[in-house]
Amino acid sequence: MDWTKKVSRLMPNWKREVELRNLGYKVHGNPFSTNTRRVLAVLLEKGLSYEAITLLVMCFLLMQPFGQIPVFVDGNIKLHESRAITQYIAYVHSARGTQLLYLQSHETMAILTVWMEIEAHQFDPFASKLTWEQAIKPLYGLEADQEIVKENEANLEKVLDVYEKRLGKYRFLACNTFTLADLHHLPNIQYLLGTPTKRLFEDRPKVRKWVGEITGREAWKMACDHEKYWFGKQMK
Amino acid sequence: MDWTKKVSRLMPNWKREVELRNLGYKVHGNPFSTNTRRVLAVLLEKGLSYEAITLLVMCFLLMQPFGQIPVFVDGNIKLHESRAITQYIAYVHSARGTQLLYLQSHETMAILTVWMEIEAHQFDPFASKLTWEQAIKPLYGLEADQEIVKENEANLEKVLDVYEKRLGKYRFLACNTFTLADLHHLPNIQYLLGTPTKRLFEDRPKVRKWVGEITGREAWKMACDHEKYWFGKQMK
Repeated sequence: MDWTKKVSRLMPNWKREVELRNLGYKVHGNPFSTNTRRVLAVLLEKGLSYEAITLLVMCFLLMQPFGQIPVFVDGNIKLHESRAITQYIAYVHSARGTQLLYLQSHETMAILTVWMEIEAHQFDPFASKLTWEQAIKPLYGLEADQEIVKENEANLEKVLDVYEKRLGKYRFLACNTFTLADLHHLPNIQYLLGTPTKRLFEDRPKVRKWVGEITGREAWKMACDHEKYWFGKQMK
Repeated sequence: MDWTKKVSRLMPNWKREVELRNLGYKVHGNPFSTNTRRVLAVLLEKGLSYEAITLLVMCFLLMQPFGQIPVFVDGNIKLHESRAITQYIAYVHSARGTQLLYLQSHETMAILTVWMEIEAHQFDPFASKLTWEQAIKPLYGLEADQEIVKENEANLEKVLDVYEKRLGKYRFLACNTFTLADLHHLPNIQYLLGTPTKRLFEDRPKVRKWVGEITGREAWKMACDHEKYWFGKQMK
């Protein structure tokens, strides 16, 4: 299968349009969920429109075996697992919008995959617990468990030390362009910038610069603007 | 980039040879590590040879930023993260040995990715804790923490209930052929079959059949035969 050629035949000479392109995609999720925002970020980087469907937990269990959001619907295809959805969209639309992949060769794709795995297995376990304790629990009137915060911050520091070194060599994690490996970090980082954990990113100059660059992307700001880019696209 | 055509030009009409094909690959790891075995399983499914290098932890931290094994070396390329390595090998050798991917279309690849993500994010967190408590800790003279075992078994049961339903529709998790989505489960399942957690797999008829089929694969048996397929290939 020829990923890029196949796609570029379908969508030649793409230019970013003010109007997002509507291909009938549906996202069932919640605009405050990190996993939902990960998917929105890719759709908006690609300049693609979608219908947003806010899910009540009970209905949701019927759609997705593990009861986790979001679910992405493209015609007859129904996908869950946010990182599988982002990869699907990035491949299907590889000729459109921000590239997000690193398709030059098997070797470059392997490097991208390594850094996507690092986000999923080294960064996310600590970052998502810190997000939960400090950003989500307070929304429900619960207090953060400071023991859990301390332990996860210590682990996250080690991960960010590796990032600091990597970002001394490349502008972004996988290479010198923004890819899915960077994008997948955004939802947790955005929440953590509103918590005391922010200092872990600020204490490291290269990491700080990278965080500033990725959180400042237009598509990401749109993904976080839930009034306009979620409830404004709600199914009636 | 045309994944399959590029590869098939390099390796036409492949037939399984008794002698594994030697492309100079090196695996730095430990034959008892689940992550190392995940990589060996793919190499052996593809009929590829490798040099095995057993790592002492101290040396290892110099090679890989997160200090985790294995590291896979292909000439100048050095990869870590077992699931990134398996994908790299499966793409580079997609025309050789067991297919392992589901390359027909973007949609089929997305389904494969979903089930690889499910293994990584739904199955592995519980299964690897159960492996650690019951199979690895005893090797160091430590006792399993039965509270942790109980909690993780309860969570694993829910995951396996979803698998039972899925395996009622398809012979393997992603489709009707064996793919990386199945293969990634093997290292934890193999250890858990030697623990009381075995009953969770046996209590579910479709899961039991699937486990029997994937653990019975010739390449997997070779990956577990550490005397012959690890220490027999040790760098002198």
